[in-house]
Amino acid sequence: MPSLTKLFSPSSIAVVGVSAETHKLGSVIMQNILSAGFAGPVYPVNPKYEVAMGVKCYPKVSKIRGDIDLVVIAVPAEFVPDVMRDCAKKRVEYVVIVSAGFRELGLKGLKLELEVRHIAEKFGIRVLGPNCLGLSVSATKLDATFAAMQPLGGNIAFLSQSGAFNSAILDMAAARNVGFSHFVSMGNKVDLNELDFVAEWLKDDNVKVIGMYLEQFSDGKDLLDLIKAHPYKPVVILHPGETVEAQKAMNLHTGALAGSSAIVRAALAQAGVIQVDSLEKLFHSMWLLSLGRDVHQGRVAIITNAGGPGVMLTDMIARHGLSLAELTVETLDNLKRVLPPSITPHNPVDLVGDALAERYDNALKVVAQDQNVDAILVVLTPQLVTQIEETARVVAQHFRNSKKLIIPLFIGGVFVEAAITKFNAEEIPSFIFPEQAVNALAAVARFHLPKQTKKTINLHSRTFTSIAKHTHAVARFTRTTPVALPQALTFELAKEVELDLPKQTIVDSFDSALSFVSETHFPVVLKALAEDITHKTDVKALYTDVRSVAELHEAFFALEGQLQRVSKKSKPAVLIQEQIRAQEEVLIGVNRSGDSRVYEQDGLGFGHALVFGKGGIYTEVWGDVAMGLVPMTKEQLLEMIHRTKLSKVLHGARGKKPLAVDKIVDTLLKIQKLVQMYPQISSLDINPAMVTSSRCVAVDLKIFVQE
Amino acid sequence: MPSLTKLFSPSSIAVVGVSAETHKLGSVIMQNILSAGFAGPVYPVNPKYEVAMGVKCYPKVSKIRGDIDLVVIAVPAEFVPDVMRDCAKKRVEYVVIVSAGFRELGLKGLKLELEVRHIAEKFGIRVLGPNCLGLSVSATKLDATFAAMQPLGGNIAFLSQSGAFNSAILDMAAARNVGFSHFVSMGNKVDLNELDFVAEWLKDDNVKVIGMYLEQFSDGKDLLDLIKAHPYKPVVILHPGETVEAQKAMNLHTGALAGSSAIVRAALAQAGVIQVDSLEKLFHSMWLLSLGRDVHQGRVAIITNAGGPGVMLTDMIARHGLSLAELTVETLDNLKRVLPPSITPHNPVDLVGDALAERYDNALKVVAQDQNVDAILVVLTPQLVTQIEETARVVAQHFRNSKKLIIPLFIGGVFVEAAITKFNAEEIPSFIFPEQAVNALAAVARFHLPKQTKKTINLHSRTFTSIAKHTHAVARFTRTTPVALPQALTFELAKEVELDLPKQTIVDSFDSALSFVSETHFPVVLKALAEDITHKTDVKALYTDVRSVAELHEAFFALEGQLQRVSKKSKPAVLIQEQIRAQEEVLIGVNRSGDSRVYEQDGLGFGHALVFGKGGIYTEVWGDVAMGLVPMTKEQLLEMIHRTKLSKVLHGARGKKPLAVDKIVDTLLKIQKLVQMYPQISSLDINPAMVTSSRCVAVDLKIFVQE
Repeated sequence: MPSLTKLFSPSSIAVVGVSAETHKLGSVIMQNILSAGFAGPVYPVNPKYEVAMGVKCYPKVSKIRGDIDLVVIAVPAEFVPDVMRDCAKKRVEYVVIVSAGFRELGLKGLKLELEVRHIAEKFGIRVLGPNCLGLSVSATKLDATFAAMQPLGGNIAFLSQSGAFNSAILDMAAARNVGFSHFVSMGNKVDLNELDFVAEWLKDDNVKVIGMYLEQFSDGKDLLDLIKAHPYKPVVILHPGETVEAQKAMNLHTGALAGSSAIVRAALAQAGVIQVDSLEKLFHSMWLLSLGRDVHQGRVAIITNAGGPGVMLTDMIARHGLSLAELTVETLDNLKRVLPPSITPHNPVDLVGDALAERYDNALKVVAQDQNVDAILVVLTPQLVTQIEETARVVAQHFRNSKKLIIPLFIGGVFVEAAITKFNAEEIPSFIFPEQAVNALAAVARFHLPKQTKKTINLHSRTFTSIAKHTHAVARFTRTTPVALPQALTFELAKEVELDLPKQTIVDSFDSALSFVSETHFPVVLKALAEDITHKTDVKALYTDVRSVAELHEAFFALEGQLQRVSKKSKPAVLIQEQIRAQEEVLIGVNRSGDSRVYEQDGLGFGHALVFGKGGIYTEVWGDVAMGLVPMTKEQLLEMIHRTKLSKVLHGARGKKPLAVDKIVDTLLKIQKLVQMYPQISSLDINPAMVTSSRCVAVDLKIFVQE
Repeated sequence: MPSLTKLFSPSSIAVVGVSAETHKLGSVIMQNILSAGFAGPVYPVNPKYEVAMGVKCYPKVSKIRGDIDLVVIAVPAEFVPDVMRDCAKKRVEYVVIVSAGFRELGLKGLKLELEVRHIAEKFGIRVLGPNCLGLSVSATKLDATFAAMQPLGGNIAFLSQSGAFNSAILDMAAARNVGFSHFVSMGNKVDLNELDFVAEWLKDDNVKVIGMYLEQFSDGKDLLDLIKAHPYKPVVILHPGETVEAQKAMNLHTGALAGSSAIVRAALAQAGVIQVDSLEKLFHSMWLLSLGRDVHQGRVAIITNAGGPGVMLTDMIARHGLSLAELTVETLDNLKRVLPPSITPHNPVDLVGDALAERYDNALKVVAQDQNVDAILVVLTPQLVTQIEETARVVAQHFRNSKKLIIPLFIGGVFVEAAITKFNAEEIPSFIFPEQAVNALAAVARFHLPKQTKKTINLHSRTFTSIAKHTHAVARFTRTTPVALPQALTFELAKEVELDLPKQTIVDSFDSALSFVSETHFPVVLKALAEDITHKTDVKALYTDVRSVAELHEAFFALEGQLQRVSKKSKPAVLIQEQIRAQEEVLIGVNRSGDSRVYEQDGLGFGHALVFGKGGIYTEVWGDVAMGLVPMTKEQLLEMIHRTKLSKVLHGARGKKPLAVDKIVDTLLKIQKLVQMYPQISSLDINPAMVTSSRCVAVDLKIFVQE
């Protein structure tokens, strides 16, 4: 991967499309570059002018003497390919195309975009955009954007697939005095994408937090491998399109995506990425994380001048998965010493309505020392005697002197405005709405600084060494659309990874059925195998608890009749199976996001995700499923099982015997191996697997393959 | 109920505790009353002064000549009773006690508070407070508070149990130019409570919305009866203490409340109250509701100058239970006509980045006419050419001309500030954060203006006419703590309301067991009845699927052995029961909030709540239960069942036969009747009830009674 040096830190820049009209994109960009204080030469390019913006204007990039590291292109879309070819002559390495009029306008624009990509690949030009706002880098005073304001310097690296979000975040940040190290608008991602930028930023010590608005992941697996290799740097992602409605709004194919948004959620969580679902959570959590303060276990102390907000915040804290800090006995004693005698200290620490700045100071001195406290919410409501600005001064001082995350929450409007302005000036994140403060804190708490580099499996490395036996057979069924493997091959694959299957055979006569039951014992299960019977409980194509030869006789011939009626076949195919008396039916499955080359260097997507949850008819009813990305360790699999509510039952709810959770983990490991051996598997469904106190038996297994 | 006329519209006021020190509470209140422009005379009272604030000061209220309608008391707590007695002499009807130092300070304060209540009751004085901020009424220019600012006039009636929330909401409202018709701080509610105020406000046409912060409900049932009788007026309630942690913070008994917060939620929803969980949702939803615009089915159109925010808002809208409006063909055609040809109109309507105010105007003209649209979010992100203030002018104009709820969402900070200020000045609710806008809109959408007064059952009227047979027997077991009714009496009650019970009997010998199975058929179930075996699956005290005399023999004597070992009784008590083969096990239960006089005029609390959900060991695991307040109609019961996920299974999931939902409703109606006949029932548990395609059988029934 290139280091983007000349993009972030060019020696010279050319802007193509500068004009005499100052409000045109090219002119605005040129002005922005100049006014941000860029150190090197900046060349305007436009064949129409001899002079532009008071300096010599060049007809084309190749006519400029001296090297050009970066070219910003702001001409109508149809002229972009020619400009690119001219850049190639000049051996330009980086180009930013801000022009719109490509893929976003349909087929004609898409063709133009593919031409741009072709030229870029042919001449080795790296391209940001098209259809983007440009980029800013504070360290090199580079502001190659047409944004209406320049971002302040800071340590947040932000990138967005929507230029509008860049503008909105920029405006929000300006109002709160929040700065950025890098500020990138990616547009249509014809070449440079989030992988290129994140790779750089993860290594850059000046970047404290990475924030992204991403509509599509260019390669989920590669992105997560990168992030997992740098566990010390927080990454926040806003990824819209979770709901079917939003997918429609993005004009995306619905079916495929609905599944994959669950995979995205599981994958991001597994890699330690903080996923947020709103612009304010994105902005506020980047802001808090830019402080670089670890909130460890998310134990929150509340200091407040009123009981009501304390109670309400306590509710919010619990609902958001944070916890109310248990103050130490020492802290409680010290609080008793410094607070009026009528106050019995506990968390929330209620300083009551007549609290002046000094009482806040005293309480903060004590609570900030408590080792059980990770973050402090300092709540002020404007009451008659409240010293709002003086209290802000006190809180700011403690903020500076402490390593804990101290968050001022000054609830109000007009009265608290001066205090909020003061906090902004001192670069202290502050809030006036309780919910925003707790939301942001909860997002931050999801990022625990790891005490040592986590042992993670690289997503590209397979976790097995055996050689697949049925590669050719599986390949024979693989198409561009999903195909169900036949039952016999499915059994072969299951045997290859030693899945626990019930004793079973496929028979076509009553005599064969009879000879099966002489090997095994009653009870048995009989299932019809016709392909057009998909859900076996929909028509009577399943007989369970068959206990005697007489019952077997009845069931077999009833099934035969059903099969002939439904599938018009003369010979019945009936699966006869030992009956497993399950204490619990579970679902074990796999879905793949991306293509079948997912374990190779050029494969795209997030790969295979394991699914575990309540099985049988209840899978859809409860939606009690957990997901995790392949490959997972035993510990991760156990943790995944534990995330389901079903886990309580498996571990023995209300005096029931615990079930064979270890055997479930075994099954998941075997399935994980199977999909890595046969990456063509696009989905796999064991529903149900019967779990007893000693076994996890795959009684119904379906496998689909796809390219 | 009194009309509060002299409280809201007094002819004259006395303020007790006015002093020479202008920052003291009494002086601040006096100043506030005067500066708000109160029309009648205001008398300062303080025995220490001859003159206060430039006018004659009275030593006590009774020394004032002329009638006094309202007395505000701002003296130290210990002097309050004397002032009250003096007020009684003067036949004062209303007193506002702002003084703190009562119940909130422990036992001594509580005694003082009870004394105040005693005097109030004795002399018929109505009291607001103590420990409150006072009240403001805009219609009569009354501002009897010690708040640091006066609320603006408006049509929101707000009351709070936390004075700090009054202050914070007041400050927020001032910043957004939001006004109030009434603004009340209730403090410790020694006498006047939410019932008194809500009763008035529901009748007052100047009040468009009622908002409340309530920590405890004075009488839930009465409040809901009031609200249900006025279905045209929206009521928003923030009720903290949903979580165990917050209950601890309120110093309340945990166990009792955890259950009742679920009852509160169900009860408020049933009465059409909008329950919110944060201060910002409370404030923003009151603000939107004060416009009095109906959002009908919550179908939202989005008009935006950027795709990203449109996608993100679509996600939010779907997540919040709103829906994206399906624009009519006519609307789409008209949009095509007025928008640039490159835009294919759909909802979200993306005006793209170069949209000027005129394009917003054109789009709004069209979309505001669409009958499929209930609310319009007008989204602006500050891009290079965006005409922010001009667009604000356009949106404001459409807001005024339309009856639809048009909400400006101008995402940003510095650039959008002037536009937001403009919206505030024109009293148009606007937002800069997408999540806040959608949260508020979702809260508003939960209040659908009913097309005609809903047919509701008054909570006080019982829905049965029969006479209870076992009143004396039940009364015999009723104590101040919960007591389990004996099995035999439980059966009697079940028979009285004709619950569907399995054939069953209690036997103490194998011979009796044998004679039971000759009456019924196998299979049967055997259960131990010893009281110390609470959860029957914990020890082997339950035998199911007993299919033969041999198995019966084995099970009976095994149980006898178990029982003798566990309960040390010589004679076993064994319940023998026909076995019901359930297609589904459900939970049917009742919990009572409040006391056993709940159906009488002076009974307190919300009453009995019916509970329905997944039964057996899964009740706790899935938490899939729905609740509703007694009495409910058949339709309401069906709707309650439908709220559970289990409902899908009951109605026939994945080709399974539908189960007897009508019989579940019957059972719920019978239980509803039972708890009204025996209001001493504090909780009742049928877990499980076995549901087949034709029956709902209560196989395990427990009843607890309490005063």
